[in-house]
Amino acid sequence: MKRISILGSTGSIGVQTLDVVAAHPERYDVTAIAAGTRVDALVEQVRRYRPACVSVGSAAGAQELKDRLGADAPEIHYGDAGLDAVAAHPADLVVSALVGAVGLEPTLTAIRAGREIALANKEVMVMAGALVLRELQRAGVTLLPVDSEHSAIFQALAGQRREDLARIVLTASGGPFRTWSAERIAAATIEEALAHPNWDMGPKITIDSASLMNKGLEVIEARWLFDVPPEQIDVVVHPQSIIHSLVEMIDTSVLAQLGLPDMRVPIAVALAHPERIDLDLPTLDLGRVGRFDFEEPDRERFPCLDLAFAALRGDEAAPAALNAANEVSVAAFLDGRFAFPGIAAVNAAVLEEHLARAGGAALRDLDDAREADAWARRRAGELVRERAGGVA
Amino acid sequence: MKRISILGSTGSIGVQTLDVVAAHPERYDVTAIAAGTRVDALVEQVRRYRPACVSVGSAAGAQELKDRLGADAPEIHYGDAGLDAVAAHPADLVVSALVGAVGLEPTLTAIRAGREIALANKEVMVMAGALVLRELQRAGVTLLPVDSEHSAIFQALAGQRREDLARIVLTASGGPFRTWSAERIAAATIEEALAHPNWDMGPKITIDSASLMNKGLEVIEARWLFDVPPEQIDVVVHPQSIIHSLVEMIDTSVLAQLGLPDMRVPIAVALAHPERIDLDLPTLDLGRVGRFDFEEPDRERFPCLDLAFAALRGDEAAPAALNAANEVSVAAFLDGRFAFPGIAAVNAAVLEEHLARAGGAALRDLDDAREADAWARRRAGELVRERAGGVA
Repeated sequence: MKRISILGSTGSIGVQTLDVVAAHPERYDVTAIAAGTRVDALVEQVRRYRPACVSVGSAAGAQELKDRLGADAPEIHYGDAGLDAVAAHPADLVVSALVGAVGLEPTLTAIRAGREIALANKEVMVMAGALVLRELQRAGVTLLPVDSEHSAIFQALAGQRREDLARIVLTASGGPFRTWSAERIAAATIEEALAHPNWDMGPKITIDSASLMNKGLEVIEARWLFDVPPEQIDVVVHPQSIIHSLVEMIDTSVLAQLGLPDMRVPIAVALAHPERIDLDLPTLDLGRVGRFDFEEPDRERFPCLDLAFAALRGDEAAPAALNAANEVSVAAFLDGRFAFPGIAAVNAAVLEEHLARAGGAALRDLDDAREADAWARRRAGELVRERAGGVA
Repeated sequence: MKRISILGSTGSIGVQTLDVVAAHPERYDVTAIAAGTRVDALVEQVRRYRPACVSVGSAAGAQELKDRLGADAPEIHYGDAGLDAVAAHPADLVVSALVGAVGLEPTLTAIRAGREIALANKEVMVMAGALVLRELQRAGVTLLPVDSEHSAIFQALAGQRREDLARIVLTASGGPFRTWSAERIAAATIEEALAHPNWDMGPKITIDSASLMNKGLEVIEARWLFDVPPEQIDVVVHPQSIIHSLVEMIDTSVLAQLGLPDMRVPIAVALAHPERIDLDLPTLDLGRVGRFDFEEPDRERFPCLDLAFAALRGDEAAPAALNAANEVSVAAFLDGRFAFPGIAAVNAAVLEEHLARAGGAALRDLDDAREADAWARRRAGELVRERAGGVA
């Protein structure tokens, strides 16, 4: 039995992780789970999977949980301390599936406790990749990416020597604006930006797919997940999203992982590692798919991609600043405060200012990342107001 | 230093193997080489790579080699005994790159001597796969396929547990007749059949690509190389020949190896295993390739593919019979004795008769494979004469 803890059990990845666990009850024991505000879902998960430890966002939530579970209640925690309690609970694997910066601290706790990590929380690597990489190396912990692109790279690199790797190639769907002119993109409505061709995701990440900022953030993640310099990371647009990513080796062999888009596959790869488990899902039929297309990403129409590379060439906190600016600018676009190109413009301006003021410092601790994040948020907010003021 | 012996050093694979060796003189020591009639090339190879042992086809060839090399001459052998001497010479890896049945015996000799084998000689697995598999298992020897499709499968399976494999998918270019109607194929000229879209190969294998018999023979090889039942082997047509083959795992993940067509890559993969070596070759640029297509192979227009599966469902000698029939029928087509569909017709008739007379026997030794081969050749010759008599 592999003992699994889940940070973010009621979110999309958490729920799908429990789906995979439910299909293989003989292999997995859910030992601790943490969620935020969805107490109903949490009550149901506790009743079904019987974890020994559970955490919820607030003290009120914890009390509600206690009242509703009665005699069946496990050890109950709440808030940041609760996340840390779940992260530190004895387990073989911790699924880090919270959304945003809140997942940083508990993920580091789990790493320092020597737990194997299945990482779905992008911000952990985007905000503090350099720091997390050092902690992983110190703790000798394996980090298993849960995300179709990074899982693909992880799978393609299985059985390969790291020194034989020449290049990582992340595939990108290209998003809804792939074939649009710069003019048409500039006039895009919020609904048009939210119409992702292949994946059904939340609004923030869907906008990030439209701007290619999502691919940029994945480049940043890849840089730290696989400890590969940015010069060895490329992006190719592949609208069908069947090849999830590729690696090129020094002998020019390219290895890739492919499949129909379903997050349960990378989740199962992480849960079962180093084995694999049966998944009762449709299999890839290439004859039926018929065709893959590829094209270079257009760095003029989609400037956010290069911002990620620029951040990686900067100081270790630069990706955190870019990520924070992007959260603010995307929210502003979704609020109708400015047109789509405003996202890249705000991101670029904040990153440039960050790089000018940062001076290439290393991330000493999470506070450094949080400081860069807070500064960039404030500065992006100001830029949004300036820009929106001029437009509205 | 890895000590390499090469059976078939002056053929296409042999020469390219030496190219790879020449690019990495610090890693490889060519210790023994064998060729057939190309004494000039052999003299040059001996002078350049200084093997300790060399073999040539005939006694006259051996004498010529001795005279021309003079005081520099290594240990010189000839004929079948010479091939065996090269196969048994102390080495870390034996490259089995002879063409046809002549490679069977020395390859088994190398296996029994515990040498790691880089296998390019198709007939070894097509004629005697079941027997070779048993010998490999007995000797605990690793067989490294040198052939783009099987090397791709081997690479994709690196780091995977064999029990997690669900399916092998071999890619096929589809050959020059991929888009042709059955009527047009029936009227194809020899030149049209020899016009392969992606690879520049000899006439026999090019015709086999046009009939998909080549893919059928690769299905047979894959069955034994990877010890996978025929029900778990599929073929998909991929005209660009960039994905060299794929494997599907039980969790629906598909792993693939891709690259520009160049035999030096699978050769280098085998030579360097379990490491990889730098190759100064053009790398795959997906944005430039632009597009991959896939389609189901048409089993009506290309009946040779299903003959291979039928042979695998028959007795252990059936693939040898099919292969022999195909050599005769392809030669007859190249001699203008009948139209293109005559190849499949002769192959099918010989296989059917073989299956009726064989009664499901196992291959006890190479003589059993040779007997099936000889019988099928004779019978195919008769059928060619009947058919050609009716046509010419």
